Amino acid sequence: MRYYYPVFKVLGGVLMLFGLTMAVPLGFSHFLHDGIEEGFALSMAITIAIGAGLFLHCRHLDRELQPHDGFLLATLVWTVLPVFGAIPLLLHIPGLSFTDAYFEAVSGLTTTGATVLTGLEKLPVSINIWRCFMVLIGGMGIIVLAVAILPLLGVGGSQVFKAETPGPMKDDKLTPRIAETARGLWTVYFAIATACLLGYRWAGMSWPDAFMHMCSTMGLGGLAGYDASFAAFDSLKVELVAIVFMLLSGVNFALYFRIWQRRSMRPLWRDLEARLFFALMAASVAVVTVFLVAHGVYPEWTTALRHAAFNVISVATTTGFATVDYAQWPIFAPILMLFLCGFATCAGSTGGGIKLSRSLLLMKQVQREFTRLLHPRAVRPVTLGGAVVEPQVLFSVQAFMLVYGAVLTAGTMALLLTGLDIISAFTAVVACINNTGPGLGQVGPANNYQGLTDLQTWICSIVMLLGRLELFAMLILFTPQFWRR
Amino acid sequence: MRYYYPVFKVLGGVLMLFGLTMAVPLGFSHFLHDGIEEGFALSMAITIAIGAGLFLHCRHLDRELQPHDGFLLATLVWTVLPVFGAIPLLLHIPGLSFTDAYFEAVSGLTTTGATVLTGLEKLPVSINIWRCFMVLIGGMGIIVLAVAILPLLGVGGSQVFKAETPGPMKDDKLTPRIAETARGLWTVYFAIATACLLGYRWAGMSWPDAFMHMCSTMGLGGLAGYDASFAAFDSLKVELVAIVFMLLSGVNFALYFRIWQRRSMRPLWRDLEARLFFALMAASVAVVTVFLVAHGVYPEWTTALRHAAFNVISVATTTGFATVDYAQWPIFAPILMLFLCGFATCAGSTGGGIKLSRSLLLMKQVQREFTRLLHPRAVRPVTLGGAVVEPQVLFSVQAFMLVYGAVLTAGTMALLLTGLDIISAFTAVVACINNTGPGLGQVGPANNYQGLTDLQTWICSIVMLLGRLELFAMLILFTPQFWRR
Ligand SMILES: [K+]
Ligand SMILES: [K+]
Repeated sequence: MRYYYPVFKVLGGVLMLFGLTMAVPLGFSHFLHDGIEEGFALSMAITIAIGAGLFLHCRHLDRELQPHDGFLLATLVWTVLPVFGAIPLLLHIPGLSFTDAYFEAVSGLTTTGATVLTGLEKLPVSINIWRCFMVLIGGMGIIVLAVAILPLLGVGGSQVFKAETPGPMKDDKLTPRIAETARGLWTVYFAIATACLLGYRWAGMSWPDAFMHMCSTMGLGGLAGYDASFAAFDSLKVELVAIVFMLLSGVNFALYFRIWQRRSMRPLWRDLEARLFFALMAASVAVVTVFLVAHGVYPEWTTALRHAAFNVISVATTTGFATVDYAQWPIFAPILMLFLCGFATCAGSTGGGIKLSRSLLLMKQVQREFTRLLHPRAVRPVTLGGAVVEPQVLFSVQAFMLVYGAVLTAGTMALLLTGLDIISAFTAVVACINNTGPGLGQVGPANNYQGLTDLQTWICSIVMLLGRLELFAMLILFTPQFWRR
Repeated sequence: MRYYYPVFKVLGGVLMLFGLTMAVPLGFSHFLHDGIEEGFALSMAITIAIGAGLFLHCRHLDRELQPHDGFLLATLVWTVLPVFGAIPLLLHIPGLSFTDAYFEAVSGLTTTGATVLTGLEKLPVSINIWRCFMVLIGGMGIIVLAVAILPLLGVGGSQVFKAETPGPMKDDKLTPRIAETARGLWTVYFAIATACLLGYRWAGMSWPDAFMHMCSTMGLGGLAGYDASFAAFDSLKVELVAIVFMLLSGVNFALYFRIWQRRSMRPLWRDLEARLFFALMAASVAVVTVFLVAHGVYPEWTTALRHAAFNVISVATTTGFATVDYAQWPIFAPILMLFLCGFATCAGSTGGGIKLSRSLLLMKQVQREFTRLLHPRAVRPVTLGGAVVEPQVLFSVQAFMLVYGAVLTAGTMALLLTGLDIISAFTAVVACINNTGPGLGQVGPANNYQGLTDLQTWICSIVMLLGRLELFAMLILFTPQFWRR
């Protein structure tokens, strides 16, 4: 156990920082006079105190963090922080169980955006601010996790994206790498976040609304301050701003870092994954628009386009905002949208799912297999952006895909065993593993996760965490190998 | 086009043989006096005449068949034979469309066992004999395809099972290899089929019933002579015989060939895949039995065990017989059963799905990935039964799995687009791609494929063919590369 003290020390530090971020909802509470400042102050005190305690208790054994400590650290951060993130919710939402509060905090910090709450409008505004702010914090963690930590650990073939990373590449030490990468990524993250905030304000939102929905948009989270989600605004301007920033957040943030470094947009246009992402979004919106008009869901092209654009991009980017109850559309459309959310976002974005670059590698490998069947002696390596992809990376990507399928199956089976109907069970697992949020049926866009039993809620929390930690980073802790040394 | 004449010549020969097999239902019709001898005679004449015409027309250009001709030949055999197999159905079932007749023949020859017919009891017995006999013929084709042809072509990593094959291994010429392998496999196939026939007769079936259900059992087909499937017999003895022979047919027939050659059962007990198969069946029956009792579906253990044993083994082995409407069981059970049918049978059996050996390789690769994450420099090769599996085989198996997932998704989406509900759409595609037969919902065990529109029926026919031809053997014909020389 003492061997892991350096990991716990970092966790303690992260907890203290997390506690400090509670100053943001506390500040809002103060200026909005919603009367729950004390709750936030208490939560903050508890979080910082426990974080400091952990930090101090574990500070003595100081060994350099090794790459494989990253598995434990990432899992601890995403499972422990929600415990503390849940405190303000437990204090100020009457009758909320720990199960539900933890789910809500996990949903925020994994940027899933599924909720167990209704009557959001009646909650203190700063509670909604905190729910959404956790999405922004989660997003900060995710881009560092995805761009710096997981590629270093070689999870799911993500080492192939190393070249994109800001910061020192050849340094195998965890801490400096994370620190330098984080600095670069967060700079561009906050720059875009500021633009998003001003965009929503321009579109007519109040400052608190603009802030909380900016947080939720940047993290592709999907939590909103209204039960009706974005239908509450009923504003084309708001929807357009949301679309722009959902699309921007679906791209690898390392690209923005390079754009900023080079003062040129070229890195974006030259990136295959980003181009594919925009093309896929455009094509999907077009298909769903035509489908909706053809089925007479919306008689007017413009209405169909508006609703298709917002809701398709929202689900496909794993955001999960809604302006209509798209579960009522003929079933092909919502199923297509949920299918897209499994792979449509770029690696290094705040999105979930297996990511476009992995899908691309898998497709290229299938293509190569067809060639091999006809010309067994002419097997060429798979390439990505001109560079040869090592077989080991392909194996890692495929293992990722297999475990993804296994978790999808096991999660659905587990929910079926608890008595949930099959549509809700399957789509809840899809929506959670991809960190999207709304599924269909009982967990559809017009409903939420409130109707689930405690056991079902826990299953969903676990699936959200598994998805966010790219499966392997969490599952590896359950192998005896990990704990052997 | 002339380049493919040697392939068409073989197809002509196969057609002639297929025409000859119509003598079997013709003989039954004669002895049972059901008055449709002439129909079979006519069908037989047409099939043999067209087969002979093709054979003679294409006999002049005589080049040796190459391995890659196997793709075209396999696809032609399984798409063209059903056209002729449908003739007797079209002649004697009033109002039957070609779409439905072709579906029924594809369902037989791919040993899927899905049906678009109701009122089976009122059909001439020899028509039911023919439907089921096509399953037996299909099964003969499948074991040769799976044991001799596909491994030679390297489809889906099946080259790893080469060692099991009777016949010359190093011969790259298609024809002698197929001939010798077929002789060995069909000897044991017919021996077991005879035992099955006598078993059903012993259990109390009439000769025609015993014959047709033997055919359907050996091919793991699932077509029956009664709308109620095996519930029509309501006999424990019949069910036990069916269970025994469904299990036997789920094993690699190359193993039986070796058992026969060596006069020893050891090849069976020593085979990892076979042992896994039996263990998986036993475990699944146990789980479903407990589940049914726990949910009070059947208050008595013995009843639960009886129904679980028959229906779970039937679906998991991709047979598709039913003694109860298991779609009415709490949804976890039928979904588990459909999940099993995707991978539970052995390579070289008459079953469908991705096969146990492929699943085993995939699992081993995932396991290796976990090890690699912790010890990047200690990557060991994947082994199967002590032998190292080449990376290329792993890539092939994974490509197979990916295309399997893609067809599952595309097929479901296509059916959703036609307006089918999601449960029926998804389970129909699962049941067709795995050549199982009954799905859930509109295509559940108490219903059948009759309610589908023509377009939906064609989609299902295509998915059955894709599944049976192990996806690649058919899909490769749609690549431009295949036709380039
Ligand atoms: K989300
Ligand atoms: K079948």
